[in-house]
Amino acid sequence: MSSNQPPLLGILGAGQLGRMMALAAIPMGIRVRFLSPGPAGPMEGLGENFIGDWNDPNVLSNFVDGCDAVTVESEWAPAELAAEVVPAGVGVWPSPDTLLAIRHKGRQKDALREAGLPLPDYARCATKEDAVAAIKRFGLPVIAKKYEGSYDGYGNATIKMFDQLDDVWDKLAADDGLLIEAWAPFVRELSVIVARSADGDIDAYPVAYTEQRDHRCHAVVVPAGVSAEVEERARAVAMRAVETVEGVGVTGVELFEMEDGSILVNELAPRPHNTGHYTIEACPTSQFENHVRAVLGLPLGDCSMRVPAACMINVLGTRDGDTSYATLSEALSVPGAAVHIYGKEEVRKSRKMGHVTTTGIDRVEVRDRAEEAAAAVRL
Amino acid sequence: MSSNQPPLLGILGAGQLGRMMALAAIPMGIRVRFLSPGPAGPMEGLGENFIGDWNDPNVLSNFVDGCDAVTVESEWAPAELAAEVVPAGVGVWPSPDTLLAIRHKGRQKDALREAGLPLPDYARCATKEDAVAAIKRFGLPVIAKKYEGSYDGYGNATIKMFDQLDDVWDKLAADDGLLIEAWAPFVRELSVIVARSADGDIDAYPVAYTEQRDHRCHAVVVPAGVSAEVEERARAVAMRAVETVEGVGVTGVELFEMEDGSILVNELAPRPHNTGHYTIEACPTSQFENHVRAVLGLPLGDCSMRVPAACMINVLGTRDGDTSYATLSEALSVPGAAVHIYGKEEVRKSRKMGHVTTTGIDRVEVRDRAEEAAAAVRL
Repeated sequence: MSSNQPPLLGILGAGQLGRMMALAAIPMGIRVRFLSPGPAGPMEGLGENFIGDWNDPNVLSNFVDGCDAVTVESEWAPAELAAEVVPAGVGVWPSPDTLLAIRHKGRQKDALREAGLPLPDYARCATKEDAVAAIKRFGLPVIAKKYEGSYDGYGNATIKMFDQLDDVWDKLAADDGLLIEAWAPFVRELSVIVARSADGDIDAYPVAYTEQRDHRCHAVVVPAGVSAEVEERARAVAMRAVETVEGVGVTGVELFEMEDGSILVNELAPRPHNTGHYTIEACPTSQFENHVRAVLGLPLGDCSMRVPAACMINVLGTRDGDTSYATLSEALSVPGAAVHIYGKEEVRKSRKMGHVTTTGIDRVEVRDRAEEAAAAVRL
Repeated sequence: MSSNQPPLLGILGAGQLGRMMALAAIPMGIRVRFLSPGPAGPMEGLGENFIGDWNDPNVLSNFVDGCDAVTVESEWAPAELAAEVVPAGVGVWPSPDTLLAIRHKGRQKDALREAGLPLPDYARCATKEDAVAAIKRFGLPVIAKKYEGSYDGYGNATIKMFDQLDDVWDKLAADDGLLIEAWAPFVRELSVIVARSADGDIDAYPVAYTEQRDHRCHAVVVPAGVSAEVEERARAVAMRAVETVEGVGVTGVELFEMEDGSILVNELAPRPHNTGHYTIEACPTSQFENHVRAVLGLPLGDCSMRVPAACMINVLGTRDGDTSYATLSEALSVPGAAVHIYGKEEVRKSRKMGHVTTTGIDRVEVRDRAEEAAAAVRL
C-alpha cells in the first residue's frame, strides 16, 4: 500500500454486496472501484464506476491498475483472469483456487469430505445410471443439484419419485453430469460467517438461525437459539470448512443442525453472505468491514455481538417494474429498524431489493419488529 | 418526492459532516450531492460532486435543481441564498432563519434568554466601555467571544486581567462589538444532540460527557455519568433550546453542568455535531441518519442507545503535510474499535482527521480502549 494514498479496493461486480463492501470501506478512508457490465444502481454514487466486459483482459488491466487489492462480490466473477493481469504484490482475494473449488458443487463437496468435514451423503453422477444408483443407495427423496450456477433454489430439484429423474437430468445435467444429495432431515438451517486473512488468522461470527421461504433466505435471527454445544460445534465446523478451501476474506457457511445436535455442511459462499447482513448493526466489525480488511491485508476486527439479539428480514420485490420510493416514509416509521435499500432501478418479483435489521434484548421481539418494518417497505 | 426516483439530498459543504450524512443516507436508498469550492477528499467517491462558489446564484441554481431537500453541514453555508433559488416545495433545512439566529452569538443568546433558557450571564458590548462595564458586573475572569466565525477555541479569549481587554477587543470586535460572558464554574461539559422535524416532532439522544483539550473536543463518553435528574434536565433544556430556534434536522447543544446540578446552555450548532459521532455505532438511528430523515421530511428514528456505553475520541493531525495511511493497519488492530478516517488529503496540526468509537458495557473500559485505538491512528 503506498503510504500517501488511501488504499484502493477493486470490486468485480456492482450489486448489493459490493455496495455494502464500499459502505464499510469508505469510513475507514479506503476507496473503492467497481467493474460491471452496465450501469448498476447499487454502485451509483459510491466510488469509481468502470463499465465493461469483465472477461476482456484489456478492461480488466485497466480496472486493476492502481488497486491495492481486488475482490469479488460473486463466486462467478473472473478472479482468475484478474489474477493474470494484476501487478506483482496486488492480491486477488478470495484466490482463484478458492473460487474454483467453491463454484463447482462436486469439487466443493469432495474438498470438504476429504478434509473430514460432516456433509450429507452425495454422489457425483456422470451419467443417469450413476444417478439411479445413488438414489437407490440414499433412498428417496434426494436433491439433484446443477454443478455450477445454482442459487436461491434455481438449479436445484427435489426428486420424490423415481420417474422425475429424466426431466431433472435434462434440465440440470452438464457435460460432467450432476450432483445427487441425500435428503438431510435437519431440524434447523444455520449459518456461520467466517473471516480469514491471507496469513491464516481466522474468526467466526455467532451462529445464525436462518429461515427460507420459497428457497430464498427470508429471516436471520441471532442468537440462533441452539445449545452452547451446537453453537461451538457449528462455529468449529464452519471455520474448518473455510480453512479447507483456504478462503480469504469473508465466507458464508450454510449448515444443517440435525436432530442429534450434529452439524452438516450444506454449502459455502466465498464472500459476504445474505445471512450476515445483521452484522452491520449487531457487531463491532461487520462482515463487510472484515471482508475489506482481510482482502487488503489489514487486521481482522471483532466478530462478537455488541447487542444481545438481532434479526434481519429480506425485502423482496413483489412485482415487475420501476422501483418506487413512495413508501419510504412508512418503511422508516418502525422504531429502531435499520432500513437498507439497494438502489436497484428495477424491481422484479422475488428480487432482493433491500433488507431490514433490528437489534434488541430479545430474539422474539427483534423478529416481530423486523417483520413489521420489512412488510412496510414496498418498493 | 417523485416516487420512481430515489430522494436526492443536496449538501452545501463537503467535509466530514457531509461525508457522514452521505454514509447514513445511501444505505436507505437516498442519493446525495455536495457543493464545495474545490475538490475535497471527504466527499470523494460519495455521490455527485459539484465544484463552485456557493455564493454564486447560478452555481446554486444548478446545484439545487432536482434536489428533494437541501441541507448544510456548517452554519456558515449560504442557506439563505439556496432558499431563494430552490423550486417550490423543496425545503432548505435548517431554515435560513435558524441559521441566522445561531450564527451570531449575540442573537443566539438573546433568543435563548427570551425563551427563558438558563445561560451564563452575558452582555452584548457595542463599545469597549460596554465591555468594561460588563466585566465589572460579572467579575473576572470573563470570556470574550467574537460574534461570528468562532469555533474550536478560535475567536474566543479568556480575560483574566483588565489590561488584556484592549488586545482582545482589537482582535475580536466587529462593527457591532463583541460578546462578554461571565465565567461559568461548571463541573462538567455535557452535550445533547436533538433531532427535530419540520412538523415539530422532537427527540433527543442521551446526555454525553464531553472533554476538551486545547479548546477542542477530545473525548465523548455516554452515559455521561450524571444523576438521573441532571440527565432529564439536560435533555429538556436542550430540546427547548432547539425549539426556540426552530431547528430542523439535528442540532448539537453544548451544556454546562453546575455544582448544584443546574444546567446552562453554552451554545448551539445547527447540524450533526462532533459530540454525536458515537451515535453511528451506539444508537439504532445515528445523528446523521436522523438529520437526513428530518430534512427530507421522513420520520425520525430511534435516539436511544442499543449498547450500555460508548466512547468517541477525535483523531487530530499532529503535523503538517500529506495524509499518510501507513499506520492504518496498526489503527485497526485494537479490538472492537470503529476507525473513521475522513479522507482529507492534507494533514495539519490539530485538524480533525478522523475519530474512533468503541462500544461496550462499561464507560471506563470503552474509554480506555478508544484512547488506545485513537493513539494508534497517526495520519
